[in-house]
Amino acid sequence: MQLLLFNLILAASLIGFISTSPTSKPPLPEKNCGYKSCHPIKKGFINVHIVPHTHDDVGWLKTVDQYYYGSNTKYQTAGVQYILDTVVDSLRKDKNRRFIYVETAFFWKWWIKQHDIVKSRVRKLVYNGQLEFISGGWSMNDEAVTHYQSIIDQMTWGLRKLNETFGECGRPKIGWQIDPFGHSREMASIFAQLGFDGVLLGRIDYQEKRFRWQTRTPEMVWRGSDSLGEASDIFTGVMYNTYSPPPGFCFDILCGDEPVIDDKKSFEYNVDRRVAEFVAYLDNVTQVYTTNNVIITMGDDFNYQDAESWFVNLDKLIYYVNQLQLSGSKYNLIYSTPSCYVNAIHDETKNNWIMKQDDFFPYASDPHAFWTGYFTSRPAIKRFERLGNNFLQVCKQLYALADLGPEDMVDLNALREAMGVMQHHDAITGTEKQHVASDYARQLQRGMDECEIITNAAIRKLLEVNIELKTCPLLNVSQCTTTTTNDGFVVTIYNPLSRPVDKVVRLPVKEDSYSVNDLQGTEYKTQIIPIPDFIKNIPGRSSQAKNELIFIARGIPALGWKSYRVMVYRKTNKNIIVSKKGNKHSVKNTAFIIDPNTGLINSLTIKNVSIDLSQNFFYYNGFVGDNSKFENRSSGAYIFRPDGPLQKITNKKVDYKVYEGELVAEIHQTFNEYISQIIRVNAIDDYVEFDWIIGPLPHSDRNGIEVVTKYQSDLKSNSVFYTDSNGKQMLKRVRNFRPSWKVNLSEPVAGNYYPVTTQISIKDTENGLAVLVDRAQGGTSLKDGEIELMLHRNCLHDDSFGVGEALNETAFGRGLVVRGSHYITVGNNGLAALTKDIVQRRLLDTWTFVVPVDEKVKYNMEFAGLKRPLPKSVQILTLEPWTGFDFLLRLEHVFEKSDQSQPVVVALADLFTSFEIISAQETTLGGNQWLKDNHRLHFNTNGTVEDLLYQDYNIVTDYETETHLLRNSIKRHTVINAFDDDSLNVSLSPGQIRTFIIQIKKY
Amino acid sequence: MQLLLFNLILAASLIGFISTSPTSKPPLPEKNCGYKSCHPIKKGFINVHIVPHTHDDVGWLKTVDQYYYGSNTKYQTAGVQYILDTVVDSLRKDKNRRFIYVETAFFWKWWIKQHDIVKSRVRKLVYNGQLEFISGGWSMNDEAVTHYQSIIDQMTWGLRKLNETFGECGRPKIGWQIDPFGHSREMASIFAQLGFDGVLLGRIDYQEKRFRWQTRTPEMVWRGSDSLGEASDIFTGVMYNTYSPPPGFCFDILCGDEPVIDDKKSFEYNVDRRVAEFVAYLDNVTQVYTTNNVIITMGDDFNYQDAESWFVNLDKLIYYVNQLQLSGSKYNLIYSTPSCYVNAIHDETKNNWIMKQDDFFPYASDPHAFWTGYFTSRPAIKRFERLGNNFLQVCKQLYALADLGPEDMVDLNALREAMGVMQHHDAITGTEKQHVASDYARQLQRGMDECEIITNAAIRKLLEVNIELKTCPLLNVSQCTTTTTNDGFVVTIYNPLSRPVDKVVRLPVKEDSYSVNDLQGTEYKTQIIPIPDFIKNIPGRSSQAKNELIFIARGIPALGWKSYRVMVYRKTNKNIIVSKKGNKHSVKNTAFIIDPNTGLINSLTIKNVSIDLSQNFFYYNGFVGDNSKFENRSSGAYIFRPDGPLQKITNKKVDYKVYEGELVAEIHQTFNEYISQIIRVNAIDDYVEFDWIIGPLPHSDRNGIEVVTKYQSDLKSNSVFYTDSNGKQMLKRVRNFRPSWKVNLSEPVAGNYYPVTTQISIKDTENGLAVLVDRAQGGTSLKDGEIELMLHRNCLHDDSFGVGEALNETAFGRGLVVRGSHYITVGNNGLAALTKDIVQRRLLDTWTFVVPVDEKVKYNMEFAGLKRPLPKSVQILTLEPWTGFDFLLRLEHVFEKSDQSQPVVVALADLFTSFEIISAQETTLGGNQWLKDNHRLHFNTNGTVEDLLYQDYNIVTDYETETHLLRNSIKRHTVINAFDDDSLNVSLSPGQIRTFIIQIKKY
Repeated sequence: MQLLLFNLILAASLIGFISTSPTSKPPLPEKNCGYKSCHPIKKGFINVHIVPHTHDDVGWLKTVDQYYYGSNTKYQTAGVQYILDTVVDSLRKDKNRRFIYVETAFFWKWWIKQHDIVKSRVRKLVYNGQLEFISGGWSMNDEAVTHYQSIIDQMTWGLRKLNETFGECGRPKIGWQIDPFGHSREMASIFAQLGFDGVLLGRIDYQEKRFRWQTRTPEMVWRGSDSLGEASDIFTGVMYNTYSPPPGFCFDILCGDEPVIDDKKSFEYNVDRRVAEFVAYLDNVTQVYTTNNVIITMGDDFNYQDAESWFVNLDKLIYYVNQLQLSGSKYNLIYSTPSCYVNAIHDETKNNWIMKQDDFFPYASDPHAFWTGYFTSRPAIKRFERLGNNFLQVCKQLYALADLGPEDMVDLNALREAMGVMQHHDAITGTEKQHVASDYARQLQRGMDECEIITNAAIRKLLEVNIELKTCPLLNVSQCTTTTTNDGFVVTIYNPLSRPVDKVVRLPVKEDSYSVNDLQGTEYKTQIIPIPDFIKNIPGRSSQAKNELIFIARGIPALGWKSYRVMVYRKTNKNIIVSKKGNKHSVKNTAFIIDPNTGLINSLTIKNVSIDLSQNFFYYNGFVGDNSKFENRSSGAYIFRPDGPLQKITNKKVDYKVYEGELVAEIHQTFNEYISQIIRVNAIDDYVEFDWIIGPLPHSDRNGIEVVTKYQSDLKSNSVFYTDSNGKQMLKRVRNFRPSWKVNLSEPVAGNYYPVTTQISIKDTENGLAVLVDRAQGGTSLKDGEIELMLHRNCLHDDSFGVGEALNETAFGRGLVVRGSHYITVGNNGLAALTKDIVQRRLLDTWTFVVPVDEKVKYNMEFAGLKRPLPKSVQILTLEPWTGFDFLLRLEHVFEKSDQSQPVVVALADLFTSFEIISAQETTLGGNQWLKDNHRLHFNTNGTVEDLLYQDYNIVTDYETETHLLRNSIKRHTVINAFDDDSLNVSLSPGQIRTFIIQIKKY
Repeated sequence: MQLLLFNLILAASLIGFISTSPTSKPPLPEKNCGYKSCHPIKKGFINVHIVPHTHDDVGWLKTVDQYYYGSNTKYQTAGVQYILDTVVDSLRKDKNRRFIYVETAFFWKWWIKQHDIVKSRVRKLVYNGQLEFISGGWSMNDEAVTHYQSIIDQMTWGLRKLNETFGECGRPKIGWQIDPFGHSREMASIFAQLGFDGVLLGRIDYQEKRFRWQTRTPEMVWRGSDSLGEASDIFTGVMYNTYSPPPGFCFDILCGDEPVIDDKKSFEYNVDRRVAEFVAYLDNVTQVYTTNNVIITMGDDFNYQDAESWFVNLDKLIYYVNQLQLSGSKYNLIYSTPSCYVNAIHDETKNNWIMKQDDFFPYASDPHAFWTGYFTSRPAIKRFERLGNNFLQVCKQLYALADLGPEDMVDLNALREAMGVMQHHDAITGTEKQHVASDYARQLQRGMDECEIITNAAIRKLLEVNIELKTCPLLNVSQCTTTTTNDGFVVTIYNPLSRPVDKVVRLPVKEDSYSVNDLQGTEYKTQIIPIPDFIKNIPGRSSQAKNELIFIARGIPALGWKSYRVMVYRKTNKNIIVSKKGNKHSVKNTAFIIDPNTGLINSLTIKNVSIDLSQNFFYYNGFVGDNSKFENRSSGAYIFRPDGPLQKITNKKVDYKVYEGELVAEIHQTFNEYISQIIRVNAIDDYVEFDWIIGPLPHSDRNGIEVVTKYQSDLKSNSVFYTDSNGKQMLKRVRNFRPSWKVNLSEPVAGNYYPVTTQISIKDTENGLAVLVDRAQGGTSLKDGEIELMLHRNCLHDDSFGVGEALNETAFGRGLVVRGSHYITVGNNGLAALTKDIVQRRLLDTWTFVVPVDEKVKYNMEFAGLKRPLPKSVQILTLEPWTGFDFLLRLEHVFEKSDQSQPVVVALADLFTSFEIISAQETTLGGNQWLKDNHRLHFNTNGTVEDLLYQDYNIVTDYETETHLLRNSIKRHTVINAFDDDSLNVSLSPGQIRTFIIQIKKY
């Protein structure tokens, strides 16, 4: 009894640092952080929040480490170590000074190298509010091509380290998405759920910006989720000059702007002129905003390497501009932070803010610069990142299930951090230089290698045997050494979902016939399909495998595995089944029909629903220009800009071969020398898979080519299509239209492209068609009934947004070959449930481990992490080791309110097989604050204003009057916190994610 | 009695801060500076002194203030404020770190702006030896075109402020002349007299460098003066890579070199390679030096703006290179300073060092880059600087004589500091950008304007009347408002020399006849000479004066003045005397003869000595190249490189007019449209003046032109000529020859040019001929009997040593017109005495003040500062207000030992008319240390080794053997300190300068 009590106290104290409870803490230096550390606002003045900051890309023109150390200056003079070194010195010189730091990936790289004295100085600066962490993710993630699971992970990892090191004062309160190229609605929702008080944005569409400037609505309340409603509301501000300083006021050591020279005896004295220039700028800024608080960002990419050069001049600027108050100036400059700015606005006005419910995609910076190319750029790394997430979740779960203890944490962290880096808005986006992309891949590979140490250790511990399980990372080119070089091997299929799944297992093999048996000795049906030449010939593939062995693993337990023993039959050749006659090829409920004249598909049947559907590949020529003016913009890594209409890949009949058996039926199509495809149906999945292989893309003399696939149906979709927001919620898109402002599209194709993170769909009154992707891609529906997705691009010219390289990926000395899958499904009312199911099974796919058969080793070939599966509507989004003996458990209702879904209750008691949950305390989404302690600032809204915004916004005054009329106060935010500590029953409403720190007792 | 005692104590405590006496000081933080703060040397290793430093030009591509504040980045990204800001921070982080600071002009600009807390931190860093001031002059003065009086002044001013602020720990011990373009012998002497222990040089002739590398003699003892002997010996080191870091090891934020990356997990890890590269460099360096201590400069122009970027990497480099000691490396890296380096060498070896007695002029950096153009570049500013010195001395003297008190010090300091800036090696040298040259002139003008406030205040105080004396700064274009616009005015002539002088006064006037009377009413002879058109037409001249009024002021007292009343006679026209017949024109003992066929002079007579002498102007075409390789070097601001032989200005007869009277005789010659000259003799001076007016220089399509004047005599000078070293001592020059190494001249003209600061002379067994200059110029003797001086240059191309502009001066929209004088004298044995006398009278010329006649004002029209004149061989080099009630008094024996001069004794008692000296304590030359406390490090020498060095130096080993044999120890330095405190009699040996802080009692 006493021992248990001791354990409880210990556990409490270990998790104590996310609490603010005074009893559980050692004495710490006085803290004066948060809103109370803000410089006071001067009533009757326009308070100008001067925010010193640096924007440190976690890789872009240089690798992360090159940026950290400052090497490779041929690409950029930037060394983050110097920024942090000198900022600390500069802040220590004057308590009035403020600085924010954002990208924690860099911060920790620096922190671990510092002497204790420096660490103590930094703590002091954090505790007195001089140094404030903003956003606090491992990187400033992209919002278009990232998945919400990885966003949450990377935010959690950054926030956790801040919390562990600085406690409450290190807890960010504001989202700071100042550079990403467009903004997702789901990101707003995530920030709200993280407990943030606001989010500030740098880049929005140039037409929307003009509109918001004219209507004085750059500040608003953004509702992040219809399912979550008010709980997902967040105050959102769009900044005047992205994140840059006013023109002429960049005081960085690498900027050329004039310093403030206040020595009256100097011939260089310029205070009066400089102050006047600054005030003139403020006069413009204050035309656009409506409150007596404005924010002026004072920093830029990798600024503050010599922090003093900034602060020395800002000190003077603030002093001398404020001196003008004596002669009637209305401006009051203060050192500030984004949080002080948002708090000042909150304190100032109880007026209603306009509400936004759509998103900020796509982003255009001028009439011919639609940043929709990067939705697809570098498709291979975009897929690799998804694979990284899949394995990271497997790894975290196994770590927790086996309770590996802190000594293996460093191996887990390698993948956590690599995945955090991948989310960066120049990483997964594909908008980095080639050498940086290679470095990202290298980091991710290292993270996955280290995680394999974890999965091995965990499985060994759970099995109590000493075997070395290998993963097969090159299954995408049908290559795996263990399955190819052994006559017998054991395949272990791990399922990271919270419910059992069936899985069509495909393994590259050398022979034509194999037997597959499970634990009980039951033999499984198999099928052999030859590996087509267009796969075998992919550059870099090195395997003797000529076939794929297929069997169906059924009922793999939730958070568990099953193992199968595979043995070669060398003599027989019973498995290969070449096509039967006829054009319709089906397995169970699912079928496709081929037009033998074209070699193309013309109809699909899924679970009794059939639709006419054709599919083909096309390409755009990328526009080539010298970027000297808007009209001359090239298509590039960021920008998609087609030169002319869509082109046919070929007019010839497509060659094909069909293989059909009991498990799968597939057609191998060869379109031309660089495009092939396998269309596939199987016995268990309610989709048709389109497995495309594209590349090396041909080089023309001039243009790059950008390959798309187009699915054409007869659905009357009426200009409407749907794309997901970071894989979480679906957003309605209307062709040539933006929900909250009037768009004028100079680029009718690129301007209709949206990010597709997991799916894109169309529907009419009878049917729906959804295309699910295995990585982020740009997609659209340019004609009713059509879905178009861009698959691969080579851009032979830079688009002049900084990366300075053409996007022209190569591998093994040739143009890059990319392979990927679309999962097409059709349906009517049940379509949403169907796609959610498929999306989940492909995102958190089973993970395959292999080991050669060793007759001497006996082990448990089946394991279940959960005692009972969770309902289909609930998924354990995260199960990972936390500090001390605790775990973090994150539960998710995977459906949205609009899916007509109902709340569910999950009982945590007696759920896991390896441990019992003895207590669970709910936190904000990031796990860095007890939910009960989170009290977000409330900003009143007037509800949706979409309709209003269709008025002619050139008449600013009219608009303002109407806006004013609409301002009614509404009720306060309610914190959703329905958890009852005693019962361990968790209720989840549609779309809801709930995060708990759980204490466990091992069985 | 008690009051007197109190005064003495007060005075003692006021001067106490140059003392180290513990009784007279307030308690100060613990001091651990000087040699005892050096990191210990590791025996048995080669100790590598890593010296972090920044080289901050006091103006060059940008003005001083632009460099200080960091503005005008289009020319250079350099802001000294940031250097000092960040260096202080970086030093505070680690006690092992060291930094030196050199240019005190910048340091004080920064210091006065700092908060007390920062000042206290800096004091701590100085007291513990982390921050060491090296050299400590107001700027790093040029050594070719500067005058020793101004060098001493600028060193004194810098050292004084350091002493006042930091006491003993702020006292520099090493000269640091790392960028000046050649090195003068007198500078070595000055460093020795300043009490320094060594001097380190960056640039020496490339052939001499090769020679010294091969013979391992980059380190030596330099004897600065034959007159002073051993007392002027100073240890001198030539650094391996000028002042730059090893190639690839510039860790400045603006450098592109690779940082040291020691994170073994990083893909960027490079420690092993970087360390190996550094060690390879050290292997080369140690081939050249002979001791177990080498210096590695770690810094460059305006480096350390972000000090941390340097230190972070140096920390690692030192650590990891020293780690190699574990595996047998012989290198031991330590943070160090030049003084620690010199001290380590001193401690290590008592061997004899080779002795050098010549200088390091001219400097060539490659076969076609002789840095001899800058001896003449920007002749106007070179003259303006001399005028500045003249007025500064007048100003200091009057300040002291009138005892103005501290409230006027700031006005005096303006000129002190402007003159300090002018000495900088890119200021007076003319090697700055045009806008910077303009700024220098502006600074100097402001200094002179402020000094006029002083001279006025002083004279008013001494006269006890309130009149406003004006100076006439534009007498060089015969312009002066007061003398031109008033019918009557009083002229006051102040004499800054320590003996009475006579002076030919020339004043621009409007009328043809004036009367001049002195105090007693005595009327003076006058002469009127019309101002020639070639003067009247100088662009920018704006005066109604058409004549110059001439009279001779006789017996102007030492440190005193006489006034003369000048009144117009409007009716008569008695003064203009046009030439008499004949070709010989003389006044008293001095005459010139004209050849009427050519219009040129052909003979001179001075005091019974006549010689045949012709004079004419010529020009060189400047070489034009693209600077892509040595052979393509252009002639430019630094480099003189003629393209082809000397060209005649004209073949025509020179037009001339002669004016001859009792006071002066002069010929006005017009050579062509851009060259005119007045040759002039007068009744009191033993010289012939050549007053040349040159410009605007014509523009050819391609080449600039570089105008010289050539004096041709029949003296058999046998390849030998003499030029002065900073105006103090004369050095023997031999055509196509260097005294201590074998020269191979690819540029036979430019390579024979030497700096002429005050005079150049030739002689044969019978006669000598000297040309005295009024500003520094390049000069040579390319043929026996000839003296050639370069007067004015326009170089239409940059010479690619950084300035990045063609030297093409303009004024008032046209090419610059320059006017100046040569004073030619001839003689045999007495020539040295004669030239010294003339040089002094022209350098410290009388200063003319004018005021319109006001009959109501009566004032003392004569004043003498000294009760008795000093002997001709002694000059008060400096009399200036010091701290508290004290003055600094510097006495000089103006002759050298080689002039067959004798020691003299000067009695200070009862010397000055305004005050009595009650005590005088001798200091080192800079006034910043009591002489008795100065104990310089002694380095043994083997006497002169000139003969030895003519051996074939390719055989290094042979040379070394011989060098070794020559090493005999000789006696220790003796400090010359013959002053007897009681008597106040000061003995001065030839060439000696002695400095005293004197306490005075006012009469």
